[in-house]
Formats: sequence, C-alpha cells, structure tokens
Amino acid sequence: MSIKIDFEILMKTIKKALINAGMNEVKADICARVHTESSADGVESHGANRVPRFVDYIQKGWVNPDGDPILIRQRGFAENYDGNLGPGISNAIFCADRAAELAKEHGIGLVTLKNATHWMRGGTYAWKIAEHGKIGMCWIATESCMPMWGSDEPSIGNNPFCVAVPREDGEIVLDMAMSQYAFGKLGVYRLAGKNLPYPGGFDEQGNLTYDPGFIEKTKRILPTGYWKGSSMALILDLLASALANGKTGADLDDEKRGSCTGCSQVFIAIDPYLFGEKEDIQNKWNTRVKRADSAHPIDPDSPVQSPGENTMKRRMESMKNGVNIDEQIWAQIQSIADGNLDVTDIS
Amino acid sequence: MSIKIDFEILMKTIKKALINAGMNEVKADICARVHTESSADGVESHGANRVPRFVDYIQKGWVNPDGDPILIRQRGFAENYDGNLGPGISNAIFCADRAAELAKEHGIGLVTLKNATHWMRGGTYAWKIAEHGKIGMCWIATESCMPMWGSDEPSIGNNPFCVAVPREDGEIVLDMAMSQYAFGKLGVYRLAGKNLPYPGGFDEQGNLTYDPGFIEKTKRILPTGYWKGSSMALILDLLASALANGKTGADLDDEKRGSCTGCSQVFIAIDPYLFGEKEDIQNKWNTRVKRADSAHPIDPDSPVQSPGENTMKRRMESMKNGVNIDEQIWAQIQSIADGNLDVTDIS
Repeated sequence: MSIKIDFEILMKTIKKALINAGMNEVKADICARVHTESSADGVESHGANRVPRFVDYIQKGWVNPDGDPILIRQRGFAENYDGNLGPGISNAIFCADRAAELAKEHGIGLVTLKNATHWMRGGTYAWKIAEHGKIGMCWIATESCMPMWGSDEPSIGNNPFCVAVPREDGEIVLDMAMSQYAFGKLGVYRLAGKNLPYPGGFDEQGNLTYDPGFIEKTKRILPTGYWKGSSMALILDLLASALANGKTGADLDDEKRGSCTGCSQVFIAIDPYLFGEKEDIQNKWNTRVKRADSAHPIDPDSPVQSPGENTMKRRMESMKNGVNIDEQIWAQIQSIADGNLDVTDIS
Repeated sequence: MSIKIDFEILMKTIKKALINAGMNEVKADICARVHTESSADGVESHGANRVPRFVDYIQKGWVNPDGDPILIRQRGFAENYDGNLGPGISNAIFCADRAAELAKEHGIGLVTLKNATHWMRGGTYAWKIAEHGKIGMCWIATESCMPMWGSDEPSIGNNPFCVAVPREDGEIVLDMAMSQYAFGKLGVYRLAGKNLPYPGGFDEQGNLTYDPGFIEKTKRILPTGYWKGSSMALILDLLASALANGKTGADLDDEKRGSCTGCSQVFIAIDPYLFGEKEDIQNKWNTRVKRADSAHPIDPDSPVQSPGENTMKRRMESMKNGVNIDEQIWAQIQSIADGNLDVTDIS
C-alpha cells in the first residue's frame, strides 16, 4: 500500500540511510535529493524504491560510495571521465553540470563517463542540463534485458534516451527507455491483478500479449516500437561505449554484476540560441507546445500534455501533500536509517 | 506489379526526368543517384516512387530546383544555412558533407538548415556522414501527420530520427520515423488485402487495429512506442526549429504546402575516436554487433540482423539483378523523362 511522506522527512531519512551505507555527507545529500525528487515527480520506480537495492549494491561492492569521476582526457568541448564505480547519481549530476559549463564556453559540451553505475532516473540529467538553460541529451549502454528483434532471448539493454528542452514556461522532457515497459512495471501490474494497457511483450506461443505474467515468464519484453526499439538501443550502445571509451552492454552481460554496474554514459549540452535570439526561440517553443497541447482530446477531461508538463504538476502536489511511497519500502528505508544494513530488494 | 530495372538505366532515366523538370545537371545527378540508391536499398517508398511527386512539387513552386543552401551564421563547429526551398536531397547532402568536414576540424560538427524541403529517405544523410568516418545524427521538424498521445487528430510530425555508426565492417544505421507505420505503407497493405503485422493505429471505436483501411479512415496512426513516439516527435521538432532558427511543424501546418516544404533539419557529425583508438573502437563495435546478431533467433532461418546490415545485402542484390520498381511508377518516370510533365502522384 502507498502512503504519503513529507518531502523533507523522506529526503532526510534517505540521506541518513545512505550515510549508514558508507557515503559521505555531501554525496548522500545529492543522492537523497534525487531519489526523493524522482518519487515526488511520480517516478517512484526509479526514486525512493531504489534505495534498498542501491544499499545492497554498495555492500556487494558493485558501487563504491567514495568513487568520484576522474578526468581521463579533454578535448575542448569534450571531456571523458572514469566513474570508478562511484554512486550513479552524484557522478551523473557532476557530468550534467560539467556538460552545461562546456556548452556555455563552446556552444556545445560533451561529457562521457565510463565505469559508471546506475543513475536511477535518466531524465534527471537531461533536465538538470535544461535547468542550466541548455538543451540536454543523455543516454547509456547497459546490460541486456530485452531481445533483439527476431530473437527470443535478452540480447540488448533498454538503454534510455533522455532529452530536455529549456523552455522557460516549463521544461519539455523526454525520458524514453527502449523497452515499452520496464520489468518492474510488469510486476506492479501482475500484483494488482491487471493487464497492461497495451501489448508489452510476447507469450510462450510467440503472440503479443497484455498479460504481464506471461511476459515475465518468456522475458520477451517488447522493444519500444517493435523492431525500432531494439535497433535504437543497439545504436545507443555503440555510441555510448565508443564516446565514453568504455564498456558495451555485451561486456556488462559477461561481468554479471548488478544492473548498470560499469556502464557507459553520455551527457550532451547544446546552446539553443546558437543561431536565434532567446526571445524568439522561447516564443517559438511556446507556440509549438501550445499547439500540441490544444490538439483535440479523445477524452475532453484529459487534455493533451507535452512530456514534462505533468511531472511539474505532480512535483508541486507532492511538495504540498507529501510524496507517495510504498509502505514496505518506507519501512526498509527507515530500517537502514536506523542502522540495519541487512537489505532485501523488494522493488 | 513490381519489375526490375538496371541501376544505371533507372538512375539515368530519373536524371533526365529531373532535368526536364527544371534542374541543372549537377543537382539532377545528385538527386537521381539518391532516389535510385534508396530504391536499390529496398526503401522504394522514399526512392524512385517519390520522383513524380517531387516533379509535381517543383511545378507547384514548393521546391525551387535552383535553390542552394546559403550560409546565414557560423560559430566554429556550427553553421546555419537557409535552404531557399532548394531540392531536399542536394541540400541535405551538402549539409551532411559539411557537418563531417566541421567534425574533422573540431571533433564535432553541427549543420542546420531552415526553409528545407523533403529530403526523401532520412537515413541517407546519417549514412553519408558515417561514410566520412564520423557518427551521423540527423532529424527534422515537419508537418503534422499523427495525433499527439491522448488526441484523435493529427497534431505532430512523424519526424524521423536517423543515426549512423561508421563501422568499417558495415555501417550500422537507424532510420526511425516517429510513427509506427508510414501512411504510404498502410495503402500498400490495404491494396494487397493484408492486415498489418502489428497494430498500427486506432479504429473508429478507439481500439488498436491491424486493419490499414480503418487507420486511413481515422487518421489515428500509432506513434512509435505508443505515448513515447509522439513525445519524442515533439522534442525533435523543438530542437530542429530552434537550432535551425526555422519553422516548427505547427508553422508548416499553417502554410499547408507539400510535405516537408519549408521544414527545419539538423545534421550532426561526431568523431567517434575522441577518446579511444580507432582500432579499439572498431573492435568493440564488431564484438557488440556480433553478439547482437548471434542472439538466439525465433526462426532458425532468420538470424538477427543489426540495422543497416540487411540494407547492404539488398543493395548488392539490386546492383546485380536490377532495382525493384512498381511498373506504373516506372512508366511515369519514363514519361517525365520523355518531356511529359503532366504528373499525377500515385505513390
């Protein structure tokens, strides 16, 4: 069951849990804020829910709580870092900020990170770049969790592709995994005794199915847009592993560590006003977004929303009324904060 | 019915048709080659099939056969051009080449084009950049042809996103429209009396359907990955219109000219060896692609293929045995080449 916890209380409790798990105060502060914000934004699956698993990863040595990004090579607009298996969130926040700084100086900034760990919610970093006034584009190469099109075994990562537009009337943010549904989402639907709203994979007979349990059995989760999603996932893997001079998803498959442990990440920031005046571009964006949002709705009570707009509404509601959290997860986080590090991942 | 025409004969006939339509020899040469190559690669819908429509657009004044890209502004790695409604193919080839040149000098190249016209097959330009040894990324902002998620009227373009990886053992190329199927494809299935292999849109009752005729009626074509495709299409529109300092898809909707007339295009080239040695990166890519291709196939006779690999096989087959073309389209092209410019678009 879901309960509501005050934003500040949730964040402080997560911070205490992370410090107990071995993090220093500065890193625990950054990570606790991002975990809490993701839950507040409605992305619980990659927010507070992940705290117990993250603590488990530290204990297994898959995350080094003291790891920081170390600069390997620099080429004007571009910098390559070694993440040293440091915390995914604090490392990725560093890279997003750094990409935006490089874009301020050069018009574009490219920061790549090898030996990274799970950054939790990918959209966080594109959004962060947008908060610096730049266009943000971020993606990763991670371990296999869905089949290549034409295959029936997991053979490519669901490598998220995240883009954010720094619109002053509200950032427009795409946070798009290359699988139609996350495996975690299948479990949520199965436990609730519900079918998926749209087909999410294949059953044992090789037919498209809405049944989450059938898909969990075959592991044949549907790529986003059928054949398109696994192709784009492969392309993102080739790009991230090359630009970060790091590991491919196949390398991670061989290593069999926790999700995203050792992965390659890309952070791009682009000055949106390279060729146009800021006011003109902002007006152009407002007009375009308003036109999208005013498209005739199927349900008059559910007007079209551009990606990111709903997130801001949810965040404000969470700040006011508390952040949604599963009560078992909340109990786990409190227990870790109380010093009990014997964690079971139930997310 | 489909027939096979020798590559050189098809290309020469298209060139003659384009010269008759008002193009100079140099531009006709470039455009005829790309139209023919696209058909040879198996992308007939955006290859030779488009020649009659293109000639029609010239006659309507939607394409200026003499238009060239004119440099508007330059900022080191980035250049912005006005396409002056010149031929989409020759202008885009120029921009792809220019992006690769800028990447040679700066490590990255960004070329944007406003007042562009239909570039036909988007993958051509990312592939072209990859042929220069760079990672290619290209996309556009064009007129609305599919509904935003939650709407039942066309309100966003199917803005293709194209990425190519310069693997020396064969480029890996993504050419991904933001609609699951092109409208043209629906017609092809309907005329053949076939259902789509996967759901492609919604019927009048608002249910997902495999029936192409139902979707043509509602115009509710499915975005790639349901809600994801229309979100990504909007993001691509915001990025292209800002970076090209050009028109959004909504602007094109208002102008009601031919498809892509006046659109904004983006061409990015990135040096893949910014941080790694060429040999290492190529080896990494080969290993990753081989692992994807060796994933257990559903059908033992249909091994997994990474995007782009099948294209190269088809191209070689077309060079050897002739290029597939619909005989009515071929008759039209021959007729234009013979001087008859009274064109009906049957593509």
